[in-house]
Amino acid sequence: MALNHFVVLIGGVGGAKLALGLTRILPAEALTFIVNTGDDMTYYGLRICPDIDTLLYTLSGRVDPVNGWGVAGDTRIMLESLRSMGESPWFGLGDKDIATHLIRTSRLQQGQRLTDIIAYLAQGMGVAQRVLPMSDTPIPTMIDTVEHGALAFQEYFVKHRWQPTVKAIRHVGAELAALSPEAAQAIAQADAIIIAPSNPWLSIAPILAVPGMRDALLARDVARVAVTPIVNGQAIKGPTAKIMAELGLEVTAESVATYYEGLLTAFIADIQDSFPDLKGLRTVAFDTMMPDDTRKIALAREVIHWLGYDI
Amino acid sequence: MALNHFVVLIGGVGGAKLALGLTRILPAEALTFIVNTGDDMTYYGLRICPDIDTLLYTLSGRVDPVNGWGVAGDTRIMLESLRSMGESPWFGLGDKDIATHLIRTSRLQQGQRLTDIIAYLAQGMGVAQRVLPMSDTPIPTMIDTVEHGALAFQEYFVKHRWQPTVKAIRHVGAELAALSPEAAQAIAQADAIIIAPSNPWLSIAPILAVPGMRDALLARDVARVAVTPIVNGQAIKGPTAKIMAELGLEVTAESVATYYEGLLTAFIADIQDSFPDLKGLRTVAFDTMMPDDTRKIALAREVIHWLGYDI
Repeated sequence: MALNHFVVLIGGVGGAKLALGLTRILPAEALTFIVNTGDDMTYYGLRICPDIDTLLYTLSGRVDPVNGWGVAGDTRIMLESLRSMGESPWFGLGDKDIATHLIRTSRLQQGQRLTDIIAYLAQGMGVAQRVLPMSDTPIPTMIDTVEHGALAFQEYFVKHRWQPTVKAIRHVGAELAALSPEAAQAIAQADAIIIAPSNPWLSIAPILAVPGMRDALLARDVARVAVTPIVNGQAIKGPTAKIMAELGLEVTAESVATYYEGLLTAFIADIQDSFPDLKGLRTVAFDTMMPDDTRKIALAREVIHWLGYDI
Repeated sequence: MALNHFVVLIGGVGGAKLALGLTRILPAEALTFIVNTGDDMTYYGLRICPDIDTLLYTLSGRVDPVNGWGVAGDTRIMLESLRSMGESPWFGLGDKDIATHLIRTSRLQQGQRLTDIIAYLAQGMGVAQRVLPMSDTPIPTMIDTVEHGALAFQEYFVKHRWQPTVKAIRHVGAELAALSPEAAQAIAQADAIIIAPSNPWLSIAPILAVPGMRDALLARDVARVAVTPIVNGQAIKGPTAKIMAELGLEVTAESVATYYEGLLTAFIADIQDSFPDLKGLRTVAFDTMMPDDTRKIALAREVIHWLGYDI
């Protein structure tokens, strides 16, 4: 069988579960992950890419199994030292994690592209799949909130624990950004596009906001399938359901499919949901809950089989 | 008694011992340290000021008592994480220590002056004495060596463990630097200038290379005294004696005094040395070895007494 190529658009913890499953059933060369970098921020001078790091830590087996992000067994000695000097850090920086940020930050300062730096980090961690930032240009996600006005993403997500009410979500500077050659090429060669069960508004929308991204995806006459991040009217983790309600949407898989309308040819819902007709989308329901590696692998296998590929 | 002001020109570990003694016998407002920053470097994007940090850690009681630099009980978890990703770091970065570098680096990126940042760090560590970088402008010390050509200071000192043969020492960009207003004011108000027992060529020469520094010191009609870093033909620690030999100098306190010629009014030698006439310099010999806090305090007291001040 000729090698097939799958491009996965992906955010943080939820998407990384499916990503891990995919890596266990497909050869490394078959997979390209295009990762949200709208969550990125500079903190104490360090350039931090939370979603990319979550994916790299997950695929390399380094991830903290309880949180689903950060490095297993990491310590916070640096953070305690900051506190001992009167600082009040609000973002978790593990000591092992800091090494990743220092490599990235110093190479960015040297003028390297984020795409090349992430490839270097992936190699250093032994991740053989291709992990691409959605763009080499920062496109910080800004959250307009009722209570605190405009918040940078991590201020909304971590500092305020996603409690403020979301009015709008903006992708700052998107108009100045571009699709990287690597992302364009991966999409051009894809046999299928998979949108991971990540937050559509916070994790996938920033990827789709990259100029050229949506057109590149639509130019491919292949399956473009999203896996629902909503199960039984709830998000597995994080603010997806809360944001949907705040944006005036019904908290259903159908709302997610509607949000992606025009982009998708297929949609994967959860077996817990009664699934309405989705106007021409090919649909199926699987058990999309992935509490352990067995379920991650099983769902990945179901998705790839359903797309028509033997594995 | 009116408060007297003492300005201390100082490098790293050796000088910090006398500095600690001085802080134990004088009120904090009496002391200003002007510290060598020729050793500074950027490593993995972090701005590191080894001599300033050694002084701050010493005066705040944080210093590693064995090494005389770094933070007591510090760990190297970040460094091990770098190694696990294939990096080969050659400079020691303790996890507690990194907090200092992150505060400094991020504030420099925000455009703050190093003088203000060091004041902030000193406050955060509870150091009440004034600690000033020799300049707000970087003046990296470059070492021309026989074996490896030009080396940045920390490459010479740490990476090559000061083993290469020194041909010349350069203060890169000194012509573009300036005395800070704080340093100028401290010197203008000084009742005495003390040159700590630091390496004259590596630690004190960079300070004297700051445009305006030497003139500001000479403009003061007060005692300007150096404490010998050479005892019995040896340096207590580090490459002072080795460099003197490589520069074709006799390894004696007299050579040090001659090197500072014109700047000094007085010189403090060690009781282990037979002390020759120093052409018009007021001289005395004390026990300048400071193996413990008792000796640091005793030498500080002897220096201040000898300068004519009651404490």
